[in-house]
Amino acid sequence: MRLSVVAERMRAQQPLVFCLTNVVVSNFTANVLLAAGAAPAMTNLPGEAREFAKVASAVLVNLGTPTTEQMHAMEQAVVGANEANTPWILDPVAVGALGERTDFARSLLPARPTLIRGNASEILALAGFESAGRGVDSTDSVTAAMHAGTDLARRYGSVVAISGPADAIIDADRTTLVHTDGLALTKVTGGGCALGAFTAAMVAAGDEVFEAAVSAHAWYGLAAERAWSRSRGPGSFAVNFLDELGEVTPSDIDSVRHEKH
Amino acid sequence: MRLSVVAERMRAQQPLVFCLTNVVVSNFTANVLLAAGAAPAMTNLPGEAREFAKVASAVLVNLGTPTTEQMHAMEQAVVGANEANTPWILDPVAVGALGERTDFARSLLPARPTLIRGNASEILALAGFESAGRGVDSTDSVTAAMHAGTDLARRYGSVVAISGPADAIIDADRTTLVHTDGLALTKVTGGGCALGAFTAAMVAAGDEVFEAAVSAHAWYGLAAERAWSRSRGPGSFAVNFLDELGEVTPSDIDSVRHEKH
Amino acid sequence: MRLSVVAERMRAQQPLVFCLTNVVVSNFTANVLLAAGAAPAMTNLPGEAREFAKVASAVLVNLGTPTTEQMHAMEQAVVGANEANTPWILDPVAVGALGERTDFARSLLPARPTLIRGNASEILALAGFESAGRGVDSTDSVTAAMHAGTDLARRYGSVVAISGPADAIIDADRTTLVHTDGLALTKVTGGGCALGAFTAAMVAAGDEVFEAAVSAHAWYGLAAERAWSRSRGPGSFAVNFLDELGEVTPSDIDSVRHEKH
Repeated sequence: MRLSVVAERMRAQQPLVFCLTNVVVSNFTANVLLAAGAAPAMTNLPGEAREFAKVASAVLVNLGTPTTEQMHAMEQAVVGANEANTPWILDPVAVGALGERTDFARSLLPARPTLIRGNASEILALAGFESAGRGVDSTDSVTAAMHAGTDLARRYGSVVAISGPADAIIDADRTTLVHTDGLALTKVTGGGCALGAFTAAMVAAGDEVFEAAVSAHAWYGLAAERAWSRSRGPGSFAVNFLDELGEVTPSDIDSVRHEKH
Repeated sequence: MRLSVVAERMRAQQPLVFCLTNVVVSNFTANVLLAAGAAPAMTNLPGEAREFAKVASAVLVNLGTPTTEQMHAMEQAVVGANEANTPWILDPVAVGALGERTDFARSLLPARPTLIRGNASEILALAGFESAGRGVDSTDSVTAAMHAGTDLARRYGSVVAISGPADAIIDADRTTLVHTDGLALTKVTGGGCALGAFTAAMVAAGDEVFEAAVSAHAWYGLAAERAWSRSRGPGSFAVNFLDELGEVTPSDIDSVRHEKH
Repeated sequence: MRLSVVAERMRAQQPLVFCLTNVVVSNFTANVLLAAGAAPAMTNLPGEAREFAKVASAVLVNLGTPTTEQMHAMEQAVVGANEANTPWILDPVAVGALGERTDFARSLLPARPTLIRGNASEILALAGFESAGRGVDSTDSVTAAMHAGTDLARRYGSVVAISGPADAIIDADRTTLVHTDGLALTKVTGGGCALGAFTAAMVAAGDEVFEAAVSAHAWYGLAAERAWSRSRGPGSFAVNFLDELGEVTPSDIDSVRHEKH
């Protein structure tokens, strides 16, 4: 199937993505969703999260800066998402590097996230393998983390997306590598976190989670590649990236190199 | 009176706006206030909110991402504002779409907000009418919400501002429509939330709440219109909008079309 | 010693700065660190803060928008920092203007912050002198606050940095003034708060706290000066500033005028 099919559907449907995310990237995340044609919405109240997860098109659970109250809201959101068959995405930020969120992230896995997105160190740590993450930075390679991705996919029925120089999209029996030069996304904060929200919007619009994830990573990485080519530095990159997200065409997305691993 | 009178006063007085607002837009809100010539300040501690509301020039209560602690701080801020006759603005974000904040917003109404700013769906829901909001997006028209605005104005003595293609400023016995092409403000997150803070600064500087609100919406919408005409997309729009806010002149503001409804 | 020595070391070491900071500036702060070549990481969980302060290169405690839970995390982070000899920076935002954070900031002083960064009003208030701060704005001059800086330096063994038209770096028996035209940093929110995080990264890379602070203020102020000269207003300034931070060269930094007071 053409990668652009999901992208066109997403732009037509404008899915509402309920983001339980971190305070550092919440603004950038909302603007990424809007720039791509989706709609962001956020609440961190346990009393609102369950009901809202039932009406939202998708739910993002990002562990960047959890609070005790937000973690309760995340648990409620996951319950509501599963009650209504709303797809939900887990982004295990800094799992492995920090203890409390590592335990919390693992406690959410039995609820079977539709998709898990992280860097190599986070995916290794979430699966219980040795990792060498430092804060939010990955110090492991995508290739080294693929077996951990496959393991999570088989145990929890999730699609796993590992971000890196090439992004790996993994399910129980396939791995596809998406090749873009999205390196600039590491020069600003939230490049990966907003990708989790954007992927949630694409999963909401797609028939098939794996394809939606491949398409999301192609679109997102291509927009970053183009934005960086027009930027003086990270400040102008963040601005140009939001502009490019809306300018990428279906045929641009179809042109992105991706291959079975 | 010329619309620009309040704008000139606001730039001269640099009112200090105490914002209890949501984490998604707090940075953009502070930068909007600074760009326009006002001063932002934020705290969400119940133990600080009451005292600070007494010394601030105006208080903004925005319900975008409330926490239990922030809601207590909001209650304290409203008490302090009323004790010191500090104007306070209520922005009922996503009221109607989410239950807990809807009850909370209504619980604040007896404290008689100086001004209430929201989109059509939020104003309808706050007043207890049928609405069809989806998260933060309005799916009702400004015209359809005017009776709800008048109803709130009469019950609580508030000026009500409804944001839309044309903005409606409403009190117990008047409605003025402000015509600008501010559509681009829906392409970035916080366009409406920051307008609530900006309006608070204008209300602090004006003799008369209704006039200050009309002037605020004219200035803000005009800056958005001009910024969009120079932008490639939402990323550059957000940057240009902050630049334009400081460049709009008194005569520009006076040129904005506004009419009694 | 050349000012640029610490800058080159910081770019080579990419120190990980654990920021406990406010919600308004967290995104800008993280992007400033990345643009300069450091790495940001944030958590506000008490259960994570102590362990993380031990592995981080430096810790920033910024009191802009504290919550009850974040204040507990800050206390834990300070304990962990001192256990591991991790340098920690205190930014007493709005101390003097708001009561609860003033008491909290003073309660942290016996833990002997490596460096304290604030504006003149905040430094005066923290030291217990008369000040006239209004929210986050200083209404006192840097010169008028130097004795308070010296007093804090002698009592707690801290280096004190006072931001203003010229920045003063103070320890028990020296004061150096760093001269740049960084006024534009007051036109966007977070200019001072992000300087605290940036100074933390430089202190982590330097042999000597005082020198690192002088170098940090020279680099940061110069980047602001250059960014402003290319900007239409505060929106474009914030973007250009992030770009300039990465473009400033060692010889540029060495050219900044600084003098013993």
